[in-house]
Amino acid sequence: MTLTLPPAQAARELVDPVLREAVDRLDPHTARVARYHFGWTDASGRPHVAGGKALRPALVVLSGRAAQADVERCLPAAAAVELVHAFSLLHDDVMDDDPVRRHRPSAWTVFGRSEAILGGNALLVLAGELLLEQGTPGSVAAARAVNHATLSLLAGQALDLEFQDRDDVTREECLRMSRHKTASLLACACSIGVTAVAGPAPLAGALAAFGAEAGLAFQLADDLLGIWGSTEVTGKPVLSDLRARKKSLPMVAALTGGTEAGHHLAELLARPGQLTEADLRDAARLVEEAGGRAWAEQEAGRRLDAAARCLSDADMPADVRDEFLRIARFITSRDH
Amino acid sequence: MTLTLPPAQAARELVDPVLREAVDRLDPHTARVARYHFGWTDASGRPHVAGGKALRPALVVLSGRAAQADVERCLPAAAAVELVHAFSLLHDDVMDDDPVRRHRPSAWTVFGRSEAILGGNALLVLAGELLLEQGTPGSVAAARAVNHATLSLLAGQALDLEFQDRDDVTREECLRMSRHKTASLLACACSIGVTAVAGPAPLAGALAAFGAEAGLAFQLADDLLGIWGSTEVTGKPVLSDLRARKKSLPMVAALTGGTEAGHHLAELLARPGQLTEADLRDAARLVEEAGGRAWAEQEAGRRLDAAARCLSDADMPADVRDEFLRIARFITSRDH
Repeated sequence: MTLTLPPAQAARELVDPVLREAVDRLDPHTARVARYHFGWTDASGRPHVAGGKALRPALVVLSGRAAQADVERCLPAAAAVELVHAFSLLHDDVMDDDPVRRHRPSAWTVFGRSEAILGGNALLVLAGELLLEQGTPGSVAAARAVNHATLSLLAGQALDLEFQDRDDVTREECLRMSRHKTASLLACACSIGVTAVAGPAPLAGALAAFGAEAGLAFQLADDLLGIWGSTEVTGKPVLSDLRARKKSLPMVAALTGGTEAGHHLAELLARPGQLTEADLRDAARLVEEAGGRAWAEQEAGRRLDAAARCLSDADMPADVRDEFLRIARFITSRDH
Repeated sequence: MTLTLPPAQAARELVDPVLREAVDRLDPHTARVARYHFGWTDASGRPHVAGGKALRPALVVLSGRAAQADVERCLPAAAAVELVHAFSLLHDDVMDDDPVRRHRPSAWTVFGRSEAILGGNALLVLAGELLLEQGTPGSVAAARAVNHATLSLLAGQALDLEFQDRDDVTREECLRMSRHKTASLLACACSIGVTAVAGPAPLAGALAAFGAEAGLAFQLADDLLGIWGSTEVTGKPVLSDLRARKKSLPMVAALTGGTEAGHHLAELLARPGQLTEADLRDAARLVEEAGGRAWAEQEAGRRLDAAARCLSDADMPADVRDEFLRIARFITSRDH
């Protein structure tokens, strides 16, 4: 999903040179895939301007400010988290057969599946390397935080795959999957700026807890957009999650709510073959009638409140706290 | 390729508990893939005894002995190198559509492609984590050595993919690819035992150079087996590299040698559709007639000699040096 997040622009400008230098170290084939995926080049390698929302680098930079550290010291961590995010998107698109990413053809459709897998792998290795080469007091802890977040993310992807073959996924299982797949890396982004500068552990802990809750709220919002978002906002065709019969949070809530509409929805999804446009519109209506939309909106609100509570006692500058809360509200708002 | 390497049995027994403990940390889905791939379980998860040759752990343990370090201190590094090797095999089999690994169905055929990709990713992350969690003087340098070897390996895989679409690959390009894809991780295995215990840098350097040369000799021998090896030795159908029209070293040498036989070979490989068994036997004969087999055997010998020279001035116990040389000869011998 794409959004424009004003203060993230600054983070993008800070972290891009670090990312570009890191990608320049790769072999030419892998670097080509990475540059395209990051939106720096088009399919033929010519300079291009696209790119993601730099949400994670913005959170890392903010996390460094929470520890009152010089922003420069957090940039390797900001780049590392963005590299892990890019790795996961490159692989996800291959696994999900997803032809579109950020309004452009996915990297695998341009370079091939194997090339996209290798590109993702290389970015994952670079993430660790960027941190370790710092040789600063917090760099090993930061690298390990990235390792843990990545293992959690992979566990989430494994659950996501498992869910595709099951028709009895519960809301709780789906929340657990999102906690792994989305919230872990956001929790890491919100806290690693502290870790990387060897800042106070309780502050890192509070920010990680905040990131985990805000991350879940973000996933709920993202899942709502996957059904009701416009192409302009999501960079994907409308109703794309329904088209893919994705077990997203509003969908699972609708299917497991015990309503008549949920029952009809299950029947519709069980039909063999591709769903028609009319089917997709029916499905979206049924998710709403079955309470999936309302639950996801309310749950996102509850998670946002929980996120805010995580910061209430954390020792950090007031403007940094406000900015964390503002970003959390922004990424879970309907119009982002 | 499978071989039985007597002293490696000891390395397998030393490193297996470390690997098993590491895999136990993974989410259940990914752990299942990893346990199967390592040969600890069968497809249904029941205990099973299979497994690779533990060549790399044996080299890491030996490398630690070169620095006269306690063997226990090298086991995380031995496990890390084996994890990276396992990661690359899991992904390679997906990319190459290879249905057989070590006489068994490849992991992706049992669990799915996405699951095998995720499993590989998780093992790669675990490799770094096993080293960093040691928190010893050499652990960061060892983790970075693994990062560098992995990036090189990925560059080799990218070259390998590129070669598949080209019919003008030179012998030098093919050697460069093998240096990345195979030799880098073996160079890492031969030296990381020294690095992990913060041993002398010149010793690590000499062992890395040895491993790079021996690794190239190993790849040459492996490529010879890919054409002329028996199923019993390789764990794959006979002539499997020819069946896949793989641009292996003897093949490229045959194609680029300017001989009549090389010309016929190129014509045969250019035929559309699957090659018949008779075609494959013809192809093997043509590689030999075009001098590909003789060149690869001689080149392996030259690399083995170069490997030995790398150790001639290195400061290490004589029995360790002898053992390195013995392993290098063994893995490049025709009957392994």
